[in-house]
Amino acid sequence: MKKVVLAYSGGLDTSYCLRYLKNEKGYQVHTVLINTGGFDEAELAAIEERAYDLGSAKHINLTIVDKYYDKAIKYLIYGNVLKNNTYPLSVSAERVFQAMEAIKYAKSVGADAIAHGSTGAGNDQIRFDLIFQTIAPEIEIITPIRDLKLSRQEEVAYLQANGVEYSWEKAQYSINKGLWGTSVGGKETLTSNLPLPSEAYPSQLQREGEEKVTLHFEKGELVGINNKMDTPVKNIILLEKLASAFAIGRDIHVGDTIIGIKGRVGFEAAAPLIIIKAHHLLEKHTLGKWQQHWKEQLGNWYGMLFHEGQFLDPVMRNIETFLEDTQKTVNGTVTVALKPYHFTLDGIESDNDLMNTGFGQYGEMNNAWTADDAKGFIKILGNAQNIFSSVNKETYV
Amino acid sequence: MKKVVLAYSGGLDTSYCLRYLKNEKGYQVHTVLINTGGFDEAELAAIEERAYDLGSAKHINLTIVDKYYDKAIKYLIYGNVLKNNTYPLSVSAERVFQAMEAIKYAKSVGADAIAHGSTGAGNDQIRFDLIFQTIAPEIEIITPIRDLKLSRQEEVAYLQANGVEYSWEKAQYSINKGLWGTSVGGKETLTSNLPLPSEAYPSQLQREGEEKVTLHFEKGELVGINNKMDTPVKNIILLEKLASAFAIGRDIHVGDTIIGIKGRVGFEAAAPLIIIKAHHLLEKHTLGKWQQHWKEQLGNWYGMLFHEGQFLDPVMRNIETFLEDTQKTVNGTVTVALKPYHFTLDGIESDNDLMNTGFGQYGEMNNAWTADDAKGFIKILGNAQNIFSSVNKETYV
Amino acid sequence: MKKVVLAYSGGLDTSYCLRYLKNEKGYQVHTVLINTGGFDEAELAAIEERAYDLGSAKHINLTIVDKYYDKAIKYLIYGNVLKNNTYPLSVSAERVFQAMEAIKYAKSVGADAIAHGSTGAGNDQIRFDLIFQTIAPEIEIITPIRDLKLSRQEEVAYLQANGVEYSWEKAQYSINKGLWGTSVGGKETLTSNLPLPSEAYPSQLQREGEEKVTLHFEKGELVGINNKMDTPVKNIILLEKLASAFAIGRDIHVGDTIIGIKGRVGFEAAAPLIIIKAHHLLEKHTLGKWQQHWKEQLGNWYGMLFHEGQFLDPVMRNIETFLEDTQKTVNGTVTVALKPYHFTLDGIESDNDLMNTGFGQYGEMNNAWTADDAKGFIKILGNAQNIFSSVNKETYV
Amino acid sequence: MKKVVLAYSGGLDTSYCLRYLKNEKGYQVHTVLINTGGFDEAELAAIEERAYDLGSAKHINLTIVDKYYDKAIKYLIYGNVLKNNTYPLSVSAERVFQAMEAIKYAKSVGADAIAHGSTGAGNDQIRFDLIFQTIAPEIEIITPIRDLKLSRQEEVAYLQANGVEYSWEKAQYSINKGLWGTSVGGKETLTSNLPLPSEAYPSQLQREGEEKVTLHFEKGELVGINNKMDTPVKNIILLEKLASAFAIGRDIHVGDTIIGIKGRVGFEAAAPLIIIKAHHLLEKHTLGKWQQHWKEQLGNWYGMLFHEGQFLDPVMRNIETFLEDTQKTVNGTVTVALKPYHFTLDGIESDNDLMNTGFGQYGEMNNAWTADDAKGFIKILGNAQNIFSSVNKETYV
Repeated sequence: MKKVVLAYSGGLDTSYCLRYLKNEKGYQVHTVLINTGGFDEAELAAIEERAYDLGSAKHINLTIVDKYYDKAIKYLIYGNVLKNNTYPLSVSAERVFQAMEAIKYAKSVGADAIAHGSTGAGNDQIRFDLIFQTIAPEIEIITPIRDLKLSRQEEVAYLQANGVEYSWEKAQYSINKGLWGTSVGGKETLTSNLPLPSEAYPSQLQREGEEKVTLHFEKGELVGINNKMDTPVKNIILLEKLASAFAIGRDIHVGDTIIGIKGRVGFEAAAPLIIIKAHHLLEKHTLGKWQQHWKEQLGNWYGMLFHEGQFLDPVMRNIETFLEDTQKTVNGTVTVALKPYHFTLDGIESDNDLMNTGFGQYGEMNNAWTADDAKGFIKILGNAQNIFSSVNKETYV
Repeated sequence: MKKVVLAYSGGLDTSYCLRYLKNEKGYQVHTVLINTGGFDEAELAAIEERAYDLGSAKHINLTIVDKYYDKAIKYLIYGNVLKNNTYPLSVSAERVFQAMEAIKYAKSVGADAIAHGSTGAGNDQIRFDLIFQTIAPEIEIITPIRDLKLSRQEEVAYLQANGVEYSWEKAQYSINKGLWGTSVGGKETLTSNLPLPSEAYPSQLQREGEEKVTLHFEKGELVGINNKMDTPVKNIILLEKLASAFAIGRDIHVGDTIIGIKGRVGFEAAAPLIIIKAHHLLEKHTLGKWQQHWKEQLGNWYGMLFHEGQFLDPVMRNIETFLEDTQKTVNGTVTVALKPYHFTLDGIESDNDLMNTGFGQYGEMNNAWTADDAKGFIKILGNAQNIFSSVNKETYV
Repeated sequence: MKKVVLAYSGGLDTSYCLRYLKNEKGYQVHTVLINTGGFDEAELAAIEERAYDLGSAKHINLTIVDKYYDKAIKYLIYGNVLKNNTYPLSVSAERVFQAMEAIKYAKSVGADAIAHGSTGAGNDQIRFDLIFQTIAPEIEIITPIRDLKLSRQEEVAYLQANGVEYSWEKAQYSINKGLWGTSVGGKETLTSNLPLPSEAYPSQLQREGEEKVTLHFEKGELVGINNKMDTPVKNIILLEKLASAFAIGRDIHVGDTIIGIKGRVGFEAAAPLIIIKAHHLLEKHTLGKWQQHWKEQLGNWYGMLFHEGQFLDPVMRNIETFLEDTQKTVNGTVTVALKPYHFTLDGIESDNDLMNTGFGQYGEMNNAWTADDAKGFIKILGNAQNIFSSVNKETYV
Repeated sequence: MKKVVLAYSGGLDTSYCLRYLKNEKGYQVHTVLINTGGFDEAELAAIEERAYDLGSAKHINLTIVDKYYDKAIKYLIYGNVLKNNTYPLSVSAERVFQAMEAIKYAKSVGADAIAHGSTGAGNDQIRFDLIFQTIAPEIEIITPIRDLKLSRQEEVAYLQANGVEYSWEKAQYSINKGLWGTSVGGKETLTSNLPLPSEAYPSQLQREGEEKVTLHFEKGELVGINNKMDTPVKNIILLEKLASAFAIGRDIHVGDTIIGIKGRVGFEAAAPLIIIKAHHLLEKHTLGKWQQHWKEQLGNWYGMLFHEGQFLDPVMRNIETFLEDTQKTVNGTVTVALKPYHFTLDGIESDNDLMNTGFGQYGEMNNAWTADDAKGFIKILGNAQNIFSSVNKETYV
């Protein structure tokens, strides 16, 4: 009997796949759920129960939050990665890591095939397949939803015909939750002009006024909040809790999908947005001009390839090395003011702050150089422009 | 008698320069104020009166708002230029244009010298000198404040000794206003950790709730608001009025100055920030992936050189040509929701929208390609990665 | 009867397609050969004869050399485009233009389908299909060679069985000739370690010693040679003739194909290499530092997308605009020394030369600035580095 | 008595400085020569003798070839650094390292000042001063040649008046030799149009025909030649010997100097050019597409900052980390054919070769994917272009 590992989420699509692969295709189906921070213990237990109920030969829940932080989120922070200046890769990054764990698991149990529930019209199929192909080209990839193009109704009907009687009430929005944010898709996000209504977002406003939070960074990592040190993962979770009470972190990402069409998706990601903006501010104080320039270049490229599922491209490891090397001086504390629906950054304190070093103060009189030094600087700085202008007799004005 | 043109603002520093150049250096002093949108008629008249009072041989107020928009702001919008992801170049851009008009004026009146009131520790001296040198290398540059390094007290004392009895009350903050925003410097901005207090910003919250505004773009330019068409300059002014009632547009820019030290400056720029974000959103819908990529590259570089006073570098004209060429399809309407202290973007409507074209919808079933097409796409898309992985026997996970 | 337009070259593959589409598929086959400079009149006539002989309903030879120069080569020169620092896109560029003319022709004759003879393992299929799909999505694409995966023997056998008795002697190398160079593939190029033997290249050494050639450029275009003005196309042809007598222009391109595998192909392209190197030298004298920087960025990207068949990506038009705008000052004469198997550049003369302008001479004493100016320049230029070093107590040495 | 360390080369300028600083300024002068591979033992001894003869209190020759390779040349190879696609930084790189050793030495002997013999019109003054300032801001920089703007005649006259009777015959060209090449400046290089005559280059043609050389690389370093393993430094020296017999490696660099004027300098650098081209070819076979892309970006930037004396900018260390990380798979052998005045690359052999992996061969039939896979790939690859074209009704042709 052939063995397939199915990336199982408990939802309708993968539940259909589970029963279909077992009953119609005769597979022994092993289900696996990779938890990147979006599921609590009760949810995990419920999914496991459902998996067995639907005929899984073996279900396993793998929680990989720490690894996910250490091999992905960390670099997304180092690189201040916001796709199209907006989106912290809430879903894209975790999909890649779910793919890697799933295929690793499939290899470990000697599976003949691996299955996922993505359609043929989105980015996720690409993230799954690219990773699967690369890590285990010998394992067949099976994708019933993509192949059969079933409607929701057809899936429900099939399951009912197979004696599965859950109520698959259609949620208004498709929600995906993980450590690095929650995506919200459907209805308005299928248009170009409509925003998501406030109630579509997972968190609602519970606080008024303003709350100050201090974030402590060491070599670019969030090592503490409000003078309490903890692991970066726990700090992310805590900050998310503090900030989501202010309904911070909502936005809509509009982007070019891997398959060339435009896509739009809502998300709520309070902690990711605050951490990235705070980290970026700290870098403005502690890194040189060209470090910031190249970090932006490489960080954005890293984000693009990651988003597009090319996480195993060898350049990704090289970029990670670069980003990590830039973080040596990114130490200090950033104070953030949480407010209803938005936040502002107060400022930073850092031993590596390159501002106010006694060296010279912007715009103020100082002793590090003289008026004549400044004039010499400007004179020579203008040489190239002056020559070009005089040779080509250009008159801009 | 030698003639000097002094870029005059009515403030203490340039008032000192005016009297000093006349009395101590024996110049015939012609004063000029270049208005980029920050002065109203009454202010201009008052400055003119003061100039004559202090001994100007001839004062002129030049309002160049339309030219400033057409030769600068327009491209800053095309390029979505926010220095360090934050600052719309409120001061830097206008300083460059003030420099160009001042030196042009100096040439036209046959001046022997041109003077400005900048110190030797900031960016403005560089913007002025670079432009002056390039456009009129034959005209001497005189900078009393930079050369003499006088304190405020010394300047006041000198003027009093010369019979000038204005009260030069020291403002807590140094404010600079123009079409593209107002900068607020001093006190807290000289630290790394303190935010500006709310009252330091020119506009205070006057509205509650939410107001929707529609912005109409044609080839990247803001041609109308709320279905009323007008010139881009008038639209910017109107939007600033609407949005500043919500106290929108406050932030602090931290950057690397041209002279290599870090600098920090507060600003309020409601219209610029809203326009750039709205324009950027419209581009996400109407431009291709690589158009957006290269616009970001070139736009940021344009912003950097502009900020650093290298506006006459020949590459700037080439970049303007590029940016303009990308705007052909950037047409449509963006709806913005103004809220206390912040704003959100609802969405866009555009005949050039590349989303929802009937071609295929992200994540949904569609007929533009089959499951097999998608599989073929992913298989070949993964070739390079697969080969690298198999040749180098790399095991990432 | 359904009508297909076949891009016909006279070779075995497309001859097979012609007969196969007619006899097996029942198409009325219209053949078209797009000549980008690789065929002379006699060759064109012979191909036409063969087309009719094999059953073409209508054959047409379209010579598009001037358009090809004007819409492609020109920009490749402006951008100094050498893929991987080596390859002038000899084949890739012409394939794209052949595709555009073929599909345009297919539309004009109301064809139901369009066919090409590429396999499923190369870049050409992608260049053809991408262009066909975009310009006429309604026209079906037919690719017998790709679909049937026939061997050379099977194709010959089929044609013989159909009464076609040409001798299809297998050339040792597959040669493709056009205005912008000749590619040479096969045998050694299928290995990683072997060079092509000298005799595999189309031109053999016929000259000894050295010949000086002067190239005259106007706004980046080659408008004359040795003081004789002519069209750029004629100048390219003349230069190719002069330089190929020295067996100049041979090299091997190693690159990443669009389908992710590595590929290697020999080429001979004397005129393209000389023109690009001469043009680039002229730019080093006549353009500013950042113009050169961004030209290199955009030129390389343009070359990559062009090579990969993405010529209709909208960013390509924007880049062309940029490149053209940079050429205003690229005027002057470059002297080239042709020698056996290689060439060197003597130097340039140009009214737009930014060197030796009387402004100051590199390394020599000069009057444009003083020793103190230089010291001031360097002092302030070093500020950022000094601050970083002192704050972070780094000791590099 | 105040102590100055003088970077001494034995030439007229620094000999003048030595005597001038001692006699006119009353310094105790310590002389140091930093040898980056351009001096043999006899030359070093002669310079030492002259230094003492002219009044040096203490002379030291520091040979830093291994360190220079390890901290500079290595990265220039990793990055395939050729400034403006031409120049391997023969002089610029060594000047920076001479500056670092000189200032380190000055600190170690407790010098009050450090002196160099550069003029105020070149790049070298900037390389020296920037490094000096950063590493030891407390040590005064003295530059008699820059300050006094003396002519050659005046220097000779001064020395003669001081009893120094060397014959300072004026060489036609100023030559600078080091491990990474020899520069040749003067006469023709001061024009834009003249090449250097053959006899101006240090090496003359001594060989005819062709000689094959195999270069062995390990992680990007040249670890052997012709199957004989040795240190990279020794391999560079050996290759230079082999190749200069063919008079390989001559060219002229035209560039933008740090002070904004254009400069032109001849050089001979056989080993650097061959190594970089061979290394680059090996990378084309062993690195992914985006690794090559980003290596080029960062390598060029590294070369620019290095050339401009900004070696201590913190981003340089980050880039070195990146470059080194990319070299893991850059292993193998490159065969080079040396010929009179030029060289060609035969090909490579490598266990990390990504070509001919059995995975699929470019342009040939293969089994890694089907015709349908290819069609699906191209269909989806074209989606974005098709949508843009159909929405905007663009007709390129």
